[in-house]
Amino acid sequence: MTTVKVPEKLQTLRGFKVSKILNDGKDSSSFGNVVALLGTFPGLMEEEEEESVVLKLSRPPIPLDDLDQLADAITLYERMPYSGMEYGYYHGVVNNSSETFFAPYVSVDVLYPGCLKDESKEAKAKLLAKHISRNQAQRPVIFRENPKTYENAHLPYIEAIPSSAIGWVHKILNKEKELERLLFDDDDVNDGFLLNTDPKWTTHPDPKTTPKEQWMNHPSTRELYCLGLCHRKDVRSLRDLRAAHLPMLRAMAKKGREVIKNTYGLANESLRIFVHYPPQFYHFHVHFTNVSVEHGVSAERAHLLDDVIENIERDSEHYAKRSITCRMGENDELWRRFKELDDKAGAEAADDDAR
Amino acid sequence: MTTVKVPEKLQTLRGFKVSKILNDGKDSSSFGNVVALLGTFPGLMEEEEEESVVLKLSRPPIPLDDLDQLADAITLYERMPYSGMEYGYYHGVVNNSSETFFAPYVSVDVLYPGCLKDESKEAKAKLLAKHISRNQAQRPVIFRENPKTYENAHLPYIEAIPSSAIGWVHKILNKEKELERLLFDDDDVNDGFLLNTDPKWTTHPDPKTTPKEQWMNHPSTRELYCLGLCHRKDVRSLRDLRAAHLPMLRAMAKKGREVIKNTYGLANESLRIFVHYPPQFYHFHVHFTNVSVEHGVSAERAHLLDDVIENIERDSEHYAKRSITCRMGENDELWRRFKELDDKAGAEAADDDAR
Repeated sequence: MTTVKVPEKLQTLRGFKVSKILNDGKDSSSFGNVVALLGTFPGLMEEEEEESVVLKLSRPPIPLDDLDQLADAITLYERMPYSGMEYGYYHGVVNNSSETFFAPYVSVDVLYPGCLKDESKEAKAKLLAKHISRNQAQRPVIFRENPKTYENAHLPYIEAIPSSAIGWVHKILNKEKELERLLFDDDDVNDGFLLNTDPKWTTHPDPKTTPKEQWMNHPSTRELYCLGLCHRKDVRSLRDLRAAHLPMLRAMAKKGREVIKNTYGLANESLRIFVHYPPQFYHFHVHFTNVSVEHGVSAERAHLLDDVIENIERDSEHYAKRSITCRMGENDELWRRFKELDDKAGAEAADDDAR
Repeated sequence: MTTVKVPEKLQTLRGFKVSKILNDGKDSSSFGNVVALLGTFPGLMEEEEEESVVLKLSRPPIPLDDLDQLADAITLYERMPYSGMEYGYYHGVVNNSSETFFAPYVSVDVLYPGCLKDESKEAKAKLLAKHISRNQAQRPVIFRENPKTYENAHLPYIEAIPSSAIGWVHKILNKEKELERLLFDDDDVNDGFLLNTDPKWTTHPDPKTTPKEQWMNHPSTRELYCLGLCHRKDVRSLRDLRAAHLPMLRAMAKKGREVIKNTYGLANESLRIFVHYPPQFYHFHVHFTNVSVEHGVSAERAHLLDDVIENIERDSEHYAKRSITCRMGENDELWRRFKELDDKAGAEAADDDAR
């Protein structure tokens, strides 16, 4: 028996020394809420290899039981580069003094349109509504869309969106915007596409001030997020893709991988290329992310570009004929339209039964 | 102008009253690290509707800069129902006293095989290795598997797994295990399947002591996770599915939805049904989760059952012929085999070029 110094039961971890961080919690799947360490109790055992311990740290969601205390514990700072008066947008930290002990390490964003002196009542109300809807947890729902429900619910929904909603896309394609984020551009009207660093990639070094050589193998490539926009304007989404688009799709896959490898050093094995359906805007685009990025990639939203290409190679009409599952928020207009159609179909079926 | 009492700039949130929790952070996508509140500053403005504020609370990952302090701040408890001496498995909380202030609210699991008095050195080393590998962050990698790489790398990998690895599946199918979790069983040898509450669904009320009526509309259905196991033993994974399996697959989709609706009250619009490829074990099974569950559902791992059925309806050989993207950890044996094959193919191509 080697366990001469081990206590009957451990009471504390006094003397524990960290030898390795097994998981620093920075992978997006645990959001920093789980951390794992390997360590030892030097001198506790006779044989060194028996001293090893795995420690797992975890924590519950931000506590919401003392909300009124919270207000007193916050010091506010204006958020740069936004002016607090213009946007009503502040950043705050919770003071860790003993009287106001509440949720330390928590930081606070304050979105306060009411303090905008020069805005109209309507403008302020609109701003508030926008912030509420953006920050409200929405129950996700799914709907299995077939070609008929696409035509009768989804297509009218798309056609009701003002064309100005994708004005920003055209500005990027015309290189009036985000030039500092440009990674690749082939402006062929049929098969061309442009590849950009997506502004969603918030850990990316400032593209205006950081030379491109420093983008290579940057630690932030763990959160890599790039966006490919096609130049042709007649493809709204996955549903519109046909064999004629294969050269463009293949170029996006091949050239996209190449450019990302040459710019960021990210290997193919770490790169996920996919499209959303329904997309967030109806000008065909492709997402390129590190496989570690876990947000927005669930199977009922994300379609791997390699699968899309093989599906169309096999049958040009694949996306015209097939059912596609759609994920939305329960407050989304598209969900309202799907449900309306479903209710009508149900009522008609009941009518038929009654006859 | 109505802004008589608004200060030039906000300094604190003193007087802020919470009127609504917009997002309680309990959806699995933010892991409780983002919370959003709607509130007011009563009396600050003349018009009530201008008093509204949106507050967003967020926090960084568990800090790892003071690791040695951590050990001193922890009090340990044995984890029930496990015995601390048998498993070396403790649970701890960080003391929030002012001297040992470190990462409050963080809880700690201690996996300490070295303290097992009656185990052999080998057994302890094996336990430690298991805990390390389970808790180590692994870089995820993807590989595009075609029928040839399936046959030459994946299939030999499957065949090397001892059949005892799925002994627990057979015990469930024979109803020797987890009977309290049984939701449905049709033991037809061709098309039958069994539906269970998955033990991964940790927030489920204790199935041994909670009557089934109380499962209906239980708040934990937000994390709903059920598992469908087919009775036939000759389907290892998605790759083996053919038209002959359509009756079974359709039953899993239809009956699964029905049983989950009747047991938990979860509507179709909230239910995601999918299979993993590669699966975690090679006896064909189907996952049923609330759409809100975001873990393990990324597009390069999860295949919606509705899509699987339509693919096979169109072509019985779909999953025999197609390429399928596989996601693994970089330390996984399967990845090692894929890479080995890739390197060999690369070397042979180079040989051909040289000739």
